[in-house]
Amino acid sequence: MSNTEKSVNSLVTMGPIPGSKKIYVKGKLHDISVAMREIELSDTVDTDGNVEKNAPVTVYDTSGSYTDVNANVDLTKGLPRLREKWIEDRNDVVRLEGLSSEYGQQRLGDASLDELRFEHVVTKPLAAKEGKRPTQLAYARAGIITPEMEYVAIRENQRIDELFPEKEHITAEFVRAEIASGRAILPANINHPESEPMIIGRNFLVKINSNIGNSPTTSSIAEEVEKAVWSFRWGADTIMDLSTGKNIHETREWIVRNSPVPVGTVPLYQALEKVNGKVEDLNWEIFKDTLIEQAEQGVDYFTIHAALLWKHVPLTQKRMTGIVSRGGSIMAKWCMYHHQESFLYTHFEEICEILARYDVGISIGDGLRPGSIYDANDRAQFAELRKMGELTKIAWEHDVQVLIEGPGHVPMSKIKENMDEQLKHCFEAPFYTLGPLVTDIAPGYDHITSAIGGSMIAQEGTAMLCYVTPKEHLGLPDRDDVKVGVVTFKLAAHAADLAKGHPAAQIRDDAMSKARFEFRWKDQFHLALDPETALKFHDKTLPDEGHKTAHFCSMCGEHFCSMRSSKDLREMASKYTPEELEEKIKEKSQEFKDKGSKLYI
Amino acid sequence: MSNTEKSVNSLVTMGPIPGSKKIYVKGKLHDISVAMREIELSDTVDTDGNVEKNAPVTVYDTSGSYTDVNANVDLTKGLPRLREKWIEDRNDVVRLEGLSSEYGQQRLGDASLDELRFEHVVTKPLAAKEGKRPTQLAYARAGIITPEMEYVAIRENQRIDELFPEKEHITAEFVRAEIASGRAILPANINHPESEPMIIGRNFLVKINSNIGNSPTTSSIAEEVEKAVWSFRWGADTIMDLSTGKNIHETREWIVRNSPVPVGTVPLYQALEKVNGKVEDLNWEIFKDTLIEQAEQGVDYFTIHAALLWKHVPLTQKRMTGIVSRGGSIMAKWCMYHHQESFLYTHFEEICEILARYDVGISIGDGLRPGSIYDANDRAQFAELRKMGELTKIAWEHDVQVLIEGPGHVPMSKIKENMDEQLKHCFEAPFYTLGPLVTDIAPGYDHITSAIGGSMIAQEGTAMLCYVTPKEHLGLPDRDDVKVGVVTFKLAAHAADLAKGHPAAQIRDDAMSKARFEFRWKDQFHLALDPETALKFHDKTLPDEGHKTAHFCSMCGEHFCSMRSSKDLREMASKYTPEELEEKIKEKSQEFKDKGSKLYI
Repeated sequence: MSNTEKSVNSLVTMGPIPGSKKIYVKGKLHDISVAMREIELSDTVDTDGNVEKNAPVTVYDTSGSYTDVNANVDLTKGLPRLREKWIEDRNDVVRLEGLSSEYGQQRLGDASLDELRFEHVVTKPLAAKEGKRPTQLAYARAGIITPEMEYVAIRENQRIDELFPEKEHITAEFVRAEIASGRAILPANINHPESEPMIIGRNFLVKINSNIGNSPTTSSIAEEVEKAVWSFRWGADTIMDLSTGKNIHETREWIVRNSPVPVGTVPLYQALEKVNGKVEDLNWEIFKDTLIEQAEQGVDYFTIHAALLWKHVPLTQKRMTGIVSRGGSIMAKWCMYHHQESFLYTHFEEICEILARYDVGISIGDGLRPGSIYDANDRAQFAELRKMGELTKIAWEHDVQVLIEGPGHVPMSKIKENMDEQLKHCFEAPFYTLGPLVTDIAPGYDHITSAIGGSMIAQEGTAMLCYVTPKEHLGLPDRDDVKVGVVTFKLAAHAADLAKGHPAAQIRDDAMSKARFEFRWKDQFHLALDPETALKFHDKTLPDEGHKTAHFCSMCGEHFCSMRSSKDLREMASKYTPEELEEKIKEKSQEFKDKGSKLYI
Repeated sequence: MSNTEKSVNSLVTMGPIPGSKKIYVKGKLHDISVAMREIELSDTVDTDGNVEKNAPVTVYDTSGSYTDVNANVDLTKGLPRLREKWIEDRNDVVRLEGLSSEYGQQRLGDASLDELRFEHVVTKPLAAKEGKRPTQLAYARAGIITPEMEYVAIRENQRIDELFPEKEHITAEFVRAEIASGRAILPANINHPESEPMIIGRNFLVKINSNIGNSPTTSSIAEEVEKAVWSFRWGADTIMDLSTGKNIHETREWIVRNSPVPVGTVPLYQALEKVNGKVEDLNWEIFKDTLIEQAEQGVDYFTIHAALLWKHVPLTQKRMTGIVSRGGSIMAKWCMYHHQESFLYTHFEEICEILARYDVGISIGDGLRPGSIYDANDRAQFAELRKMGELTKIAWEHDVQVLIEGPGHVPMSKIKENMDEQLKHCFEAPFYTLGPLVTDIAPGYDHITSAIGGSMIAQEGTAMLCYVTPKEHLGLPDRDDVKVGVVTFKLAAHAADLAKGHPAAQIRDDAMSKARFEFRWKDQFHLALDPETALKFHDKTLPDEGHKTAHFCSMCGEHFCSMRSSKDLREMASKYTPEELEEKIKEKSQEFKDKGSKLYI
């Protein structure tokens, strides 16, 4: 067993999230089991000792098998291959004899990498049969409800269809129709059978992405895997592996094999590593080989900055902060060096053909997103957006699923315009934004400046938010920062779900509020997005175990506890029927008026 | 010297905020010096060694003399009595022979309290001369521009009137007119001459309030004073002393004498302490004596829950979380005990008469604010809001300045309705909200759930936001929590200022973005709302001093640094005139099209 193998199992966080357990809900159309998390609640006991049961709350769960006490996860083996049979049963794919990418073959043949390598590395990936496009978009358009689609429908409902049959809920057919229209995507590379299906679209729960990845200043493979698992645990719906530096091929294999959520990358980063960071040496052949290499590893979506054209570059000359997208700045530089149009644009159809073979989604990168309030919503940004719309149509022609990436730094007053323009020019393809950050002056707090913009743009219809950590603009996030980033964006996404009226969203808020009113402290912790932090903060003021069951909150003291007073009030009022109480008040009010409204002065 | 005196000077944080110094701007109408903070910036040096000066950035400063290296603050003496002469010169006030409140006299006569007592305690407070109302509202209505009003105008402008004379800016006459209309308030108790004038209104910078105060589970006087000074340092525009428990009279004296910002309280809390927490024993006489006691100490605004009527109580019976306002629940209970209308309502005119004598503003408390998403915008809440509007008119008749308090817990989709209803029913009196929190499920992160709602409602026109700390719903905030709360709300308020287009708001963002683009790291820290945290986070990844002057950001490595690439790009493009570059691109694009758009494939 290699060092990587030894350290990864011991480093990774496993076990249930406090107060909850994993449950599985069966499909009706397909033989599937959809993972969810059930939070058990304690009973309500009133002052007379009457007991009321509180139903458990089922919540959306991204944490994978790591939180299932019965799963016995071994990261050196990878997660269960949940979708493998579904993919094979569709009979549109073929198992290749070996890796198609030259680079992939070369890395596989390099014995010096054995120490780093994932043991069960994919050496014979799947690819489409000749003439087939095994993408969820192609299936949706053909009227086929895949197991993935039914999984998503069940998952989004969080059991409200069982518990509240009268409530509106999401059907598998609705999922299919949304994917077919391009309004939603279900990222599901045929070489990533370990992923639990999820959907990104504005008629579903708002999703969040967490970025991980080593870079020249960090980090071991085991640490990166733990950062990924840690992200799943707290709610990351997808992760993007933005690794630069050495051994990113091997790191990626570890991550994909152990990821229950779709994995995205920016293939240009690795392509640039392959030419030793020399932008001028980049070319289509290297990029193409990188796409194939990563597609065969199982990456579910690629960010590709294909809509940044050479002619857009002069539009950025007067900007305050130029081009802040890494991919964007690399391609702009390449165009200027070679006096040529971007090869990502000129080869776009070929890119789509490759992506369709593996069902890799494309996330069209916004290379010209504004990096400052000053640059928001400028000509450069919107020129690229229109081009993104053109490329969306081309990708759809190839049955490739599309996301559109969005800004960036935008003042609150200009957020809605971003969404409106995106809907207009990109034909309702799902929008995936980074923030936006609503001010530039709060480094150290940019998870908050971006959560403000993120929740607002999600309310307008953005389907997925890329998280931002407190270290944005300043340094590389550690494990704590990743958690703060994920939880912050989870709450921003949830706030948007509430605002949009997602049928399942408010159940958890209501359960929390009821627990608060009834001083069921442990239930409050368990219902929290981050039970550990909630408990820790509580115990800092009131460490005694008795304070978690007390029927008033000792913080303000008994006399100043409004919740306690409200309870007293209800008891006082309960001595009357509502009619009697109103009658009494009316009578007294009249008395007050009769005496010239000066009764008690 | 008492223990309190000894500890307070050593505990309190003094000295300038990194990278900045205190400056004073002279008035034109009055002999006044307005405190501001100037952030010095380093020069821009391009790759050819050309030097460009960067103008310093002047920012709004709430930190008082504590950050002035020349001030030599001694907390046992209190801050300089900046406004004393202005108040006396208006000739509308008289110095009393002694304290008017019975309780105040009793505390003063109690030798056992000497150890706790502020040395220069006010024993002969000011009050209005017979028939006079020395309030800023009365002066504004009479067409008088007070020194306070000019101070505020200069302060809000942050020197844009000097630096950019062509830009729109705020005049002293505008300040007067806004106060006269009731759209803004300038809280300035005649017994708090130490306060630096500030204004709360939707046509000015959005303000934030920080809550401090001991409670049964804490805390020494010195610690409370430090919490206050710490709040000023990071940007609190007002503080509310929400102390409950013992010695709050003495604590308050220390706080007011050392506060450069207006101080608010909820007098009902102290009144309840005086009857040992027994709600049923509360009465108008005790409350009235408390108002006078606190007004003569210099409290600048009182939260009074006078709009919660007895008849509103039944409207809360079906709520998820009842009445969550402490003041609200106390008064509701009182009404139910006594079968009487709230004495805060029945004595409202008398309250206004007292407040007008000292220029104490009234912040009409929202006793029925929703404590959960479920309860948001319900009948109870809006019934009280309409009553608040009636009371606003009465207060204005007495020349009393008015704030209206607002929620609470509100989903994003219901925020605008709160602002619309407030504007409609309360005649544009400034709105002062707690959050709103946009979801219930993130305890431990409620500074963020509330900053989201806060920035949104501020964009709609809310004038002041009450901060929320990460400990909300869980425990009592410590010093670190207070800072996180203040900075979080500062950024939320600033985001709203940007969105509303306040003329001075974007200067700091632009300076930050320019510093970012030019890798002037130290300037970035100094321009940040929280320079200490920004520096700390940066140094965690890149501790070397050299990394603060490097001309690319070592985090992503040189090749992946988009800022560096953008700089390279500008240099590449600078070899051409814009026309030449466009010509070149056009030419190549034509070539591309001529070859069937397949040139590089």
